[in-house]
Amino acid sequence: MSILVTGSIALDSVKTPLASGEDLLGGSASYAALAASFFTPVKLVGIVGDDFPKANIDLFRSRGIDLEGLQIVPGKTFRWSGEYHWDLNTRDTLSVDLNVFADFQPKLPLSYTDTPFVLLANIAPSLQIHVLDQMERPRFVIADTMDLWIHTAKAELLQLLTRVDMLILNDSEARELTGETSLIKAGNRIRSMGPQYVVVKKGEHGSLLFGPHHFFSCGAYPLEDIHDPTGAGDTFAGGLTGWLAAHVGGDVTFADLRKAVVYGSVLASYNVESFSMDRLQRLSMEDIEARYTLFKAMSEFEVLG
Amino acid sequence: MSILVTGSIALDSVKTPLASGEDLLGGSASYAALAASFFTPVKLVGIVGDDFPKANIDLFRSRGIDLEGLQIVPGKTFRWSGEYHWDLNTRDTLSVDLNVFADFQPKLPLSYTDTPFVLLANIAPSLQIHVLDQMERPRFVIADTMDLWIHTAKAELLQLLTRVDMLILNDSEARELTGETSLIKAGNRIRSMGPQYVVVKKGEHGSLLFGPHHFFSCGAYPLEDIHDPTGAGDTFAGGLTGWLAAHVGGDVTFADLRKAVVYGSVLASYNVESFSMDRLQRLSMEDIEARYTLFKAMSEFEVLG
Repeated sequence: MSILVTGSIALDSVKTPLASGEDLLGGSASYAALAASFFTPVKLVGIVGDDFPKANIDLFRSRGIDLEGLQIVPGKTFRWSGEYHWDLNTRDTLSVDLNVFADFQPKLPLSYTDTPFVLLANIAPSLQIHVLDQMERPRFVIADTMDLWIHTAKAELLQLLTRVDMLILNDSEARELTGETSLIKAGNRIRSMGPQYVVVKKGEHGSLLFGPHHFFSCGAYPLEDIHDPTGAGDTFAGGLTGWLAAHVGGDVTFADLRKAVVYGSVLASYNVESFSMDRLQRLSMEDIEARYTLFKAMSEFEVLG
Repeated sequence: MSILVTGSIALDSVKTPLASGEDLLGGSASYAALAASFFTPVKLVGIVGDDFPKANIDLFRSRGIDLEGLQIVPGKTFRWSGEYHWDLNTRDTLSVDLNVFADFQPKLPLSYTDTPFVLLANIAPSLQIHVLDQMERPRFVIADTMDLWIHTAKAELLQLLTRVDMLILNDSEARELTGETSLIKAGNRIRSMGPQYVVVKKGEHGSLLFGPHHFFSCGAYPLEDIHDPTGAGDTFAGGLTGWLAAHVGGDVTFADLRKAVVYGSVLASYNVESFSMDRLQRLSMEDIEARYTLFKAMSEFEVLG
């Protein structure tokens, strides 16, 4: 089944200890849509300016991404610039220019409104709600968020939580949102705020999936070298939702979600191994399946031999 | 098969945000021996003063631990005192009094020298080597260590590494010992220093097991409340080695070590749930097997239903 992805579409300027680049395709929806497109047809909702390079449009098209919901308006595309510290665990945001994004009012094409799976990638909760308002009873809605919205738009975020099936956020955000230091308590607390399922991402330590009756602890795929963490969380969310939409026929089960979390981790692990979207662009389904198999073997408690 | 455990035997004074106690049974060998005793006969090598409470001797005896290698000498038992911060992730050592431990020269009873499995729990590497020198070709030797020895006795530690089958250490120690920020690189680098196998413990995030051809990523058992982290690493090492000695007939395989790491994690997870050794003392094999089963279920990528 197809998925709708909304979020930011940006031109990023990124500097890591080993590489740098200007006006690179970025934004939560770009990474998420590209990751999801390996598994299922994607419909993109977002906004860019008339400076948005045609090469990026071509890239989306080459992945079969439906762009009817992409608004191209006069003005400049949203721009973000950041620099990573030597260990790649922390970064400084150098500048954020909302540009055309400042007046974004998502308007869904009619062909989008009955999309069964929805990924509200990281943008302001009010925009995520605005998209959701236009949907006709989606089967499964996943939202991603970030610390900025916990600090500046908590009321809208809490409202959003009552309307989604799953929230994805990282460990420090889960602690901030709930005031709990234990991630186990934090995950369960967030479930009581609305979403049936919660994923807490722990960066290099993997992720935790919380559900009504089950819990899943997923280690991280072991990487020797990380080159650029930009978009890792968005790629995880896109891979997770895309795999789910492609493989779930009836109701979404916890068993489905376990595998979806692992596929999200696999996509994210590839993404951070190269600068910008380089690796995602030349990824194949064979690469994805090979790493899934290896990852599973590395995490099994009991094996033969 | 039986295991020999050496390390420190101490009287601890511990203060956590919720509890405190004086002259509690502690030390790396005490926790490790108790944990191992759930699986297999244990022979203890260590030293205490004549102030060592008889109740502690009785506790060891009640777990079937062989005390022929325990020296009881005139003077005071090794004492350690520490206080945990509010989040239990950091602690201050308030005092260390070596007392009788200062002149400890481990002397193995003849009945100990052919013990097939050896756990050199955390003490000075020179003492670990001294014990190893008295052993007749043990089948599998595991050493635990800590940052103190990396800083003050690195030469001896490096010498020890060439003589053990497995080293256990935590993430920051692995980084300090190798200068690598990536734990994957650090684990592999330590293997090149001698041990065939390395376990890197990541606290609440689980552990990583490195071998010649395989890698195992073990998440942590999800705990809502941690009461006292004292002895967690020693309990992990003891549970791991004890399970291995009890269940391995021929050569130790990577499949054996995976399960041993999980059993070590299970023992450690119980230990930190209560103050001091309270939980370890009233633990049963049924408790251990129940948590192993649950832990496995929580970590599986693919399940039915």
